[in-house]
Amino acid sequence: MSGVWGKNIKLSIFGESHGVAIGVTIDGFPAGVELDIDYIKSEMRRRAPGSSALSTPRKEGDVFEILSGFFEGKTTGTPLCAIIRNGDQHSKDYTQLKYNARPGHADYTGYIKYKGFNDYRGGGHFSGRITAPLVFAGAVAKQILKEKNIVIGSHIKSIGNIKDEPFDSVNISSDKIEKLLEEDFPLLNKNVQSEMVGFILSAKKSLDSVGGVVETAVLNLPAGVGSPFFDSLESHLSHLIFSIPAVKGLEFGTGFDITKLKGSEANDEFYMEENKIKTRTNNNGGILGGITSGMPVVFRTAFKPTASISRPQNTVNLEKLENTELVIHGRHDPCIVPRAVPVVEAAAALAVLDLMLDNN
Amino acid sequence: MSGVWGKNIKLSIFGESHGVAIGVTIDGFPAGVELDIDYIKSEMRRRAPGSSALSTPRKEGDVFEILSGFFEGKTTGTPLCAIIRNGDQHSKDYTQLKYNARPGHADYTGYIKYKGFNDYRGGGHFSGRITAPLVFAGAVAKQILKEKNIVIGSHIKSIGNIKDEPFDSVNISSDKIEKLLEEDFPLLNKNVQSEMVGFILSAKKSLDSVGGVVETAVLNLPAGVGSPFFDSLESHLSHLIFSIPAVKGLEFGTGFDITKLKGSEANDEFYMEENKIKTRTNNNGGILGGITSGMPVVFRTAFKPTASISRPQNTVNLEKLENTELVIHGRHDPCIVPRAVPVVEAAAALAVLDLMLDNN
Amino acid sequence: MSGVWGKNIKLSIFGESHGVAIGVTIDGFPAGVELDIDYIKSEMRRRAPGSSALSTPRKEGDVFEILSGFFEGKTTGTPLCAIIRNGDQHSKDYTQLKYNARPGHADYTGYIKYKGFNDYRGGGHFSGRITAPLVFAGAVAKQILKEKNIVIGSHIKSIGNIKDEPFDSVNISSDKIEKLLEEDFPLLNKNVQSEMVGFILSAKKSLDSVGGVVETAVLNLPAGVGSPFFDSLESHLSHLIFSIPAVKGLEFGTGFDITKLKGSEANDEFYMEENKIKTRTNNNGGILGGITSGMPVVFRTAFKPTASISRPQNTVNLEKLENTELVIHGRHDPCIVPRAVPVVEAAAALAVLDLMLDNN
Amino acid sequence: MSGVWGKNIKLSIFGESHGVAIGVTIDGFPAGVELDIDYIKSEMRRRAPGSSALSTPRKEGDVFEILSGFFEGKTTGTPLCAIIRNGDQHSKDYTQLKYNARPGHADYTGYIKYKGFNDYRGGGHFSGRITAPLVFAGAVAKQILKEKNIVIGSHIKSIGNIKDEPFDSVNISSDKIEKLLEEDFPLLNKNVQSEMVGFILSAKKSLDSVGGVVETAVLNLPAGVGSPFFDSLESHLSHLIFSIPAVKGLEFGTGFDITKLKGSEANDEFYMEENKIKTRTNNNGGILGGITSGMPVVFRTAFKPTASISRPQNTVNLEKLENTELVIHGRHDPCIVPRAVPVVEAAAALAVLDLMLDNN
Repeated sequence: MSGVWGKNIKLSIFGESHGVAIGVTIDGFPAGVELDIDYIKSEMRRRAPGSSALSTPRKEGDVFEILSGFFEGKTTGTPLCAIIRNGDQHSKDYTQLKYNARPGHADYTGYIKYKGFNDYRGGGHFSGRITAPLVFAGAVAKQILKEKNIVIGSHIKSIGNIKDEPFDSVNISSDKIEKLLEEDFPLLNKNVQSEMVGFILSAKKSLDSVGGVVETAVLNLPAGVGSPFFDSLESHLSHLIFSIPAVKGLEFGTGFDITKLKGSEANDEFYMEENKIKTRTNNNGGILGGITSGMPVVFRTAFKPTASISRPQNTVNLEKLENTELVIHGRHDPCIVPRAVPVVEAAAALAVLDLMLDNN
Repeated sequence: MSGVWGKNIKLSIFGESHGVAIGVTIDGFPAGVELDIDYIKSEMRRRAPGSSALSTPRKEGDVFEILSGFFEGKTTGTPLCAIIRNGDQHSKDYTQLKYNARPGHADYTGYIKYKGFNDYRGGGHFSGRITAPLVFAGAVAKQILKEKNIVIGSHIKSIGNIKDEPFDSVNISSDKIEKLLEEDFPLLNKNVQSEMVGFILSAKKSLDSVGGVVETAVLNLPAGVGSPFFDSLESHLSHLIFSIPAVKGLEFGTGFDITKLKGSEANDEFYMEENKIKTRTNNNGGILGGITSGMPVVFRTAFKPTASISRPQNTVNLEKLENTELVIHGRHDPCIVPRAVPVVEAAAALAVLDLMLDNN
Repeated sequence: MSGVWGKNIKLSIFGESHGVAIGVTIDGFPAGVELDIDYIKSEMRRRAPGSSALSTPRKEGDVFEILSGFFEGKTTGTPLCAIIRNGDQHSKDYTQLKYNARPGHADYTGYIKYKGFNDYRGGGHFSGRITAPLVFAGAVAKQILKEKNIVIGSHIKSIGNIKDEPFDSVNISSDKIEKLLEEDFPLLNKNVQSEMVGFILSAKKSLDSVGGVVETAVLNLPAGVGSPFFDSLESHLSHLIFSIPAVKGLEFGTGFDITKLKGSEANDEFYMEENKIKTRTNNNGGILGGITSGMPVVFRTAFKPTASISRPQNTVNLEKLENTELVIHGRHDPCIVPRAVPVVEAAAALAVLDLMLDNN
Repeated sequence: MSGVWGKNIKLSIFGESHGVAIGVTIDGFPAGVELDIDYIKSEMRRRAPGSSALSTPRKEGDVFEILSGFFEGKTTGTPLCAIIRNGDQHSKDYTQLKYNARPGHADYTGYIKYKGFNDYRGGGHFSGRITAPLVFAGAVAKQILKEKNIVIGSHIKSIGNIKDEPFDSVNISSDKIEKLLEEDFPLLNKNVQSEMVGFILSAKKSLDSVGGVVETAVLNLPAGVGSPFFDSLESHLSHLIFSIPAVKGLEFGTGFDITKLKGSEANDEFYMEENKIKTRTNNNGGILGGITSGMPVVFRTAFKPTASISRPQNTVNLEKLENTELVIHGRHDPCIVPRAVPVVEAAAALAVLDLMLDNN
């Protein structure tokens, strides 16, 4: 099983890259939320390919159709289903892949799991394309959170070894987040953009690919969201984040680097500021004991280099069980990171909203 | 809600550090598994405090009593419940903490979440002590996996800036894992032990604490365990790992460092070896598309420095809402990492077993 | 929340009677099941309206489109989504109903639950039409069960006070079940058909409606399916059955009448027959302790008379909060029971299959 | 799997009739609920055996110990675990039953399900004794509901063919419910008591047993609790009710008899009374479309005659697979119905509370 997630809201995703349609049903969104369809479209465009030289030229469009749960401009409270029909498919590109497992992809593991019956074309259900419905669901979640003044934004923390500056996890402003949301290639320090882009295009030129890290912040969350143990905000969010294809790491607050601090440095001391309890540092990334502290929630997600590269690669033919060589034709992103930004934000919006709907 | 996890097996944990007892009910373990009680005890001892100068002198003992699901030496297939009664509590140590929120702890967030009604003594339900039942459940899971030849082991990858060498993620041997399991302070390179221990004791002396990273491997998993998206092995495992107190980061395979590789370096090429499909590298940590590839599953977990330190710290009194200073008395681990090792392994055993019980 | 059910298979239904489309996503069906599309269509037709004078003349057609999870004629193992577009809607018929709550319907309770934002047209998400996706899912489940020789069939046990003879719960034959499946108005004793039909048409003529009871049998189930307590077959099946609109009662085996027997009469004595353990009676309906015994599973479902009747009825205007009179125009089934038969069978197929996929 | 139920609150039950202890963990109860321990004890006593000639003389006592989730007299909001140690066991009574499957019991099906490894003594995990933890959980739920003025009560609707009068489902008063709660043998018409008791004692004398029906009402529920389809109040409640051993039928409102009414009779017409929307009849048992209407929720549960009877019965030896005769010694209730009353009420309290905690 693969496609159902959530506690108070239930996501159910479906679809294959080259099937009839992909989509999502979300059960549990509150009734009466006015949906800004243009906003949802703009979120879909942030993830959609084809906008620049940095992404695959496949023009998916990602035009969604809402089938249910939406009436007279507002959510009904009953399950909201949206689908995106697949078009512009070059299925022929993929026929050689039926048995030649692409390295770094799920061709082999999916073949074993589903005994060879899964739709292999373009990765089928394993395709990054299935994150489009997640972005749809996240765009609705973001609207609901926005009404509570909660904003979620990200920047590209690194591409390869090239680094943007980190979020100031204590003092990030909503304004800064809003600005990042308007950019195709969100950075805190715009000076590194040309180097990053150059690095991506150089990889593309050499038929290779690169990866990177996305840093995300959730602002204005009240204290008290989440639970100890299995419904901790970290657990709940990590569950969704690690379901995004190509994610290999996740850290909160100071993350792996907190292991290099002393307790006296890592502990975030509390103090009062204008009748609010705050912490002077935010090494814990706004979460203590699985529950929000009211400080910004900050986390970083590591994306591996796009697995589809056009260089010849060694692999195995799954039918003949013999070594072979593979050249992947077709159109691929030299770097998935910029398009992954709205996916990570969607996951964050859904995880946070789901736990905020907890009544106990 | 906080205490229920799982799909084919359901864990339900309960208890507070200074309450009557802590425990766990596990529903869904197969019937007829002969339990090696001595083995379970030894696993409990690996986590229990009091064994060396590195851990808190609180002698919890962690003596468990099985209440159900166990008959004539074997699991019955019906819910297995085990409890550990709390003893040796110095509750007085904690009374000053009722309103003085300890930095880095969940005192404040728990107070908000539970409106001041949670048991604050020793962190209550947020205490690391609640991982003891997890280790119990994991010890049973490990026995079930062992029958299928699957072994799970870890070493201390780093303490502060001091590093052990990494697992060879392609060729780790079961023998090496078995040896690590016998050690209190498991390392691949024993030469770094004295430096690590010295670093921990020095922090203890200065009333401070340190953190570190645990690296874990799961060997001999068949290919095909897990699912795309929300039941990916990474999602399922991360959910449990991030429910362990003090965890701030998790990465699979090459993890965050994979973002610095090119696709041509990161992709793990397949090849045939003795009729088995293998990969020459294992940057993906044995998981592709959320499903095991048959290569070792390797991941690293980051633990922050113990939040309880005896130095004076600034904080806020939750009742009076004013700044105050706090000195935490009581007995604390200067470094939680060695005791966290069996907890991480328990989480891995439970996550893996749960997905292996998938029938579809 | 309303629309997600299941353990090993997860159903997610969506849609409103007069929205764009209704549908279902099923996650967890085994891979490689060859789907007989004609069979699914025939199941859909059993439920679809318009086939006779007994049902509403609204021609829904119930033409489904499979969007995912189906490739080269077989299930892929990944989520299977099917939708049915709504057509032939007379939405005008319903506008007066926006605030005039129809007695016996969910107009009032839905209005409260969803704060007036739900799609009220034709009952919206509360419409019996939403059972069409359930029949689709059930048709696939039935095919999977058929491969294991498990058959599910029903007859109309009663309409009003007119009764068919009951199933012989010990000796029902697969042949008899197969014959029932071919009929629009399945009865064991065909002699009561004209009386039943006459009763329905007479109610129709007087702008009224009638209800009845469906009796269902599941044959050839192995012993051992289900669990004690919360995953008992009765619990699991009842959960689905009571989600079908208009169901007001459910009983297994001898049901309510078993309360009139002595223990010595009610107990089903075991005996050996050709190396199989059987019972001489089947008052427990093939289930003991929540687990199948290998005897036929037999249950009865009570359907209330169609709530939509064209007689003037007293009700309340939800906006003005004042008494008013209502005449429901539009097209309605004078008796829902014949069309409910495949819905009940679908629920049974899904509940049984879900528990059969249990691995522990 | 068997022992976990719920959505916003999660019940996890465990234990065997003759094991060390039975118990329940409830996760999700609100924090800060003052528990009336005496009230819980009195609820436990209502279910406990040994109080009269009508029940088994086994003196279980059902003394519970709260292990967690309870601090300074109030719930903490974290998991609440309570256990009941087993005592006064005559395990010898049961040894002959290891392979001789008792008719009407789960000995055979449990043996198949758990491959012979389940604890067979006294029915093990299948024992009605496991409902004691359910009553504990229900007693806490009832206290929480009581604060919202919601009361739940039942009477014995019938024993064999002897009937009490039914609830007036429109006008039941809280006072009447409170009175029923004080009685060991709750009836609306006390005149039938001697006949019922005589019937039970006569069955006991002849080494036989009898069954009956419990009718339950939930008063003062607000409109809007529940959801369409899978989270309908009927679905949610039926799931719990059918997990109670010996239940064979369940009906809401007019139940099976509604199938004998015309739509014009069955529909409950709405009208305004003192600014509240009410219905003049309550054939739907206070639930429309799975959601409460604000009218009393009324349902009836059918219990089969106690399966344990001391008459010689034919059965099969599971080991030798041959016919044999069985005489069940030990102590048994000639009628389980009076003791089942608080169990049904506990299930109702838990199901209602769980759905009331829905936030969407």
